[in-house]
Amino acid sequence: MLPFDLIEYQKRLYKTKSQMEKKGIEVLLVTDPANMNYLTGYDAWSFYVHQMVAVIIDEPQPIWLGRFQDANGAKLKTWLYEENIIAYPDYYVHSDSYHPMDFMARILTEIGQGNRRIGIEMDHYYFSAKAFEQLRLGLPNAEFISADLLVNGVRLIKSDKEIEYMERAARLAEQAMYHGIETIRAGVRECEVAAKIYYYMIAGTEEFGGDYPAIVPLLPSGKNTGIPHLTWTDRKLDEGDSIVIELAGCYHRYHAPLARTVSIGAPPPALEELGPIVTEGVNRVLDAAKPGVTCGELEEVWRKIIRKYGIEKEARLGYSVGLGYPPDWGEHTASIRRHDKTVLQPNMTFHLIPALWFDHYGLEISETFKVSESGSETLTQFSRELIVKHPFMIPHQDGEIS
Amino acid sequence: MLPFDLIEYQKRLYKTKSQMEKKGIEVLLVTDPANMNYLTGYDAWSFYVHQMVAVIIDEPQPIWLGRFQDANGAKLKTWLYEENIIAYPDYYVHSDSYHPMDFMARILTEIGQGNRRIGIEMDHYYFSAKAFEQLRLGLPNAEFISADLLVNGVRLIKSDKEIEYMERAARLAEQAMYHGIETIRAGVRECEVAAKIYYYMIAGTEEFGGDYPAIVPLLPSGKNTGIPHLTWTDRKLDEGDSIVIELAGCYHRYHAPLARTVSIGAPPPALEELGPIVTEGVNRVLDAAKPGVTCGELEEVWRKIIRKYGIEKEARLGYSVGLGYPPDWGEHTASIRRHDKTVLQPNMTFHLIPALWFDHYGLEISETFKVSESGSETLTQFSRELIVKHPFMIPHQDGEIS
Repeated sequence: MLPFDLIEYQKRLYKTKSQMEKKGIEVLLVTDPANMNYLTGYDAWSFYVHQMVAVIIDEPQPIWLGRFQDANGAKLKTWLYEENIIAYPDYYVHSDSYHPMDFMARILTEIGQGNRRIGIEMDHYYFSAKAFEQLRLGLPNAEFISADLLVNGVRLIKSDKEIEYMERAARLAEQAMYHGIETIRAGVRECEVAAKIYYYMIAGTEEFGGDYPAIVPLLPSGKNTGIPHLTWTDRKLDEGDSIVIELAGCYHRYHAPLARTVSIGAPPPALEELGPIVTEGVNRVLDAAKPGVTCGELEEVWRKIIRKYGIEKEARLGYSVGLGYPPDWGEHTASIRRHDKTVLQPNMTFHLIPALWFDHYGLEISETFKVSESGSETLTQFSRELIVKHPFMIPHQDGEIS
Repeated sequence: MLPFDLIEYQKRLYKTKSQMEKKGIEVLLVTDPANMNYLTGYDAWSFYVHQMVAVIIDEPQPIWLGRFQDANGAKLKTWLYEENIIAYPDYYVHSDSYHPMDFMARILTEIGQGNRRIGIEMDHYYFSAKAFEQLRLGLPNAEFISADLLVNGVRLIKSDKEIEYMERAARLAEQAMYHGIETIRAGVRECEVAAKIYYYMIAGTEEFGGDYPAIVPLLPSGKNTGIPHLTWTDRKLDEGDSIVIELAGCYHRYHAPLARTVSIGAPPPALEELGPIVTEGVNRVLDAAKPGVTCGELEEVWRKIIRKYGIEKEARLGYSVGLGYPPDWGEHTASIRRHDKTVLQPNMTFHLIPALWFDHYGLEISETFKVSESGSETLTQFSRELIVKHPFMIPHQDGEIS
């Protein structure tokens, strides 16, 4: 049932505890769903209520604390003993009289952890200002220490099994991109392109199925291609439009993102000029990526290339990627940007997305790559260029979905 | 471009300011993406970085504060003047040296709001413990007041236009449910059912397209039907399995959720017995729902019916629903549960989901309804019963997706 063997979870826990020791943390309260999954295997859409995994430095197993109706899911999806799964009743949910963190604090006190040095994920999704306030009220004898990105740091270098899952995600990304682009022509609505992408992302291959990505397919089109985070509408695509597609395949919550830009008919000259520049930039950054190089140095490679063509843009080119839940597949640790001192090591994985956005147009060509023993390897294989489609071309086989 | 006319946004802002006055709030910092959208129209997948809308009691327009690369989206998607859209540079994003809330605090100080009574959404998604800490550091002369659910309370009663959007969402929910159930048979993988649901949810109808729902389709099957928040896997469905499908159609971020339970072949006796009980319960609650009745009273109707059949279950039967972003389409205000004193009023909308979950099986039959002038009306129209499919039935037209 578990996507990784018990040894792998033990290794993750061991590394996490080492980091806790370094920071003087005795109890780590993990509220980030990706980190909860990483340490225990827990996987369900239950992060819309408060929940956590507590890692106690001198206990062999973490404790899962969550909502009563999710406890059976924790029993099914984690390697924890049942006695380490503790649930609060439903009257704590979205109530103005009860807060789940009061329950968590009481349990932590009852099991003798109330007066310890407690690490919390201060700036992670789903750990609200109120959650912290209630924990402080409920644990007046604890000392709180920020444990931001502690587990995320452990996640930075992937195991071979994690890479294998990301490679499967890459197959799904390619397939979704292929069919998304196939659908694009004048007269087709953006929502139909998104629907087709979703179908292939999730239906999977004959060997394995797809999971939901942490970010929906992003699909700005026409003059909105300079606005990267717009989702699709039901606008009909026109001849002359360009469309930026950013998507990810996802397998067992591991992501392989991929972005491409498509033009319906001949692209406007400004965009046509940008295409080869971005391709060259991506190629050179991938050539430069190898163990020992820093993320900051990769950004320099890119900056020099675009400067050669008269472009100056300060932005993040990419970030560490892997396990994730909505709203983000990025790991929030290493960024490929100026001054980032992260040194590349084998089995780190990045989404390299050196986009160029202007007021009324933009171009994205991205790759997910892993650092190998001597260089880098992209996980996705997809024509690395601005893609031009005949405006009214009808695909050869245009079946209908039954 | 805007989904609602300017008058409607003005009304929302007016009601919000009235609530602010009641609570003595001079500046409301709205960080919940649904509330940001409700007040300004802003809609983009940018909530994975810190952003907010600041409503100042004595200023005619709110201010959008967010990331530089999202500012053009705010110009496009909101009714705000460009001068009220203020963006922070990219080096604030996922950085250990800079925090976006430092920027927000500086701007608020510069525009003379630094020493006011500031309302914050303490227990909403995307307002982290750290975000509050940085705001407090950056605004030492402000007084902070919890504004939890302030805007959500304003959202409780829908306008006719909002109901119209939810009705469109209901068409998408029906269509996705229809095709999802059509796909179900022995030998089909769960992921294929999910893929088909997604396709129809998003491709939309000939008249309008679908948006992404705030929660992915939930699809526990077999002995996991008692665990409501599991997402699909690539397990093949078997004869004798039951499958719980909970999904929502979504239009302009407005949701119409719908849940049904399907059995492949004859259902086990325990499940077969539950079907009519849940149907009866849903029917009676819908009959009882009308202006003047409280949410707590609706729960009583349900409790009496299941008690008649010897079942005692304490849980929430439903909640106010409408506008939403991941991870939830619920509004977190009124709940259909014991002791909830919310009085039903026309154009309130609820997802009524009185599920019965046991250790190894469960049943969900849900309806999204609006309170009308004299009773209630469901938005979705879908056979309200445990649905039994012939285990190996092949649908009449089984095309392939090209």
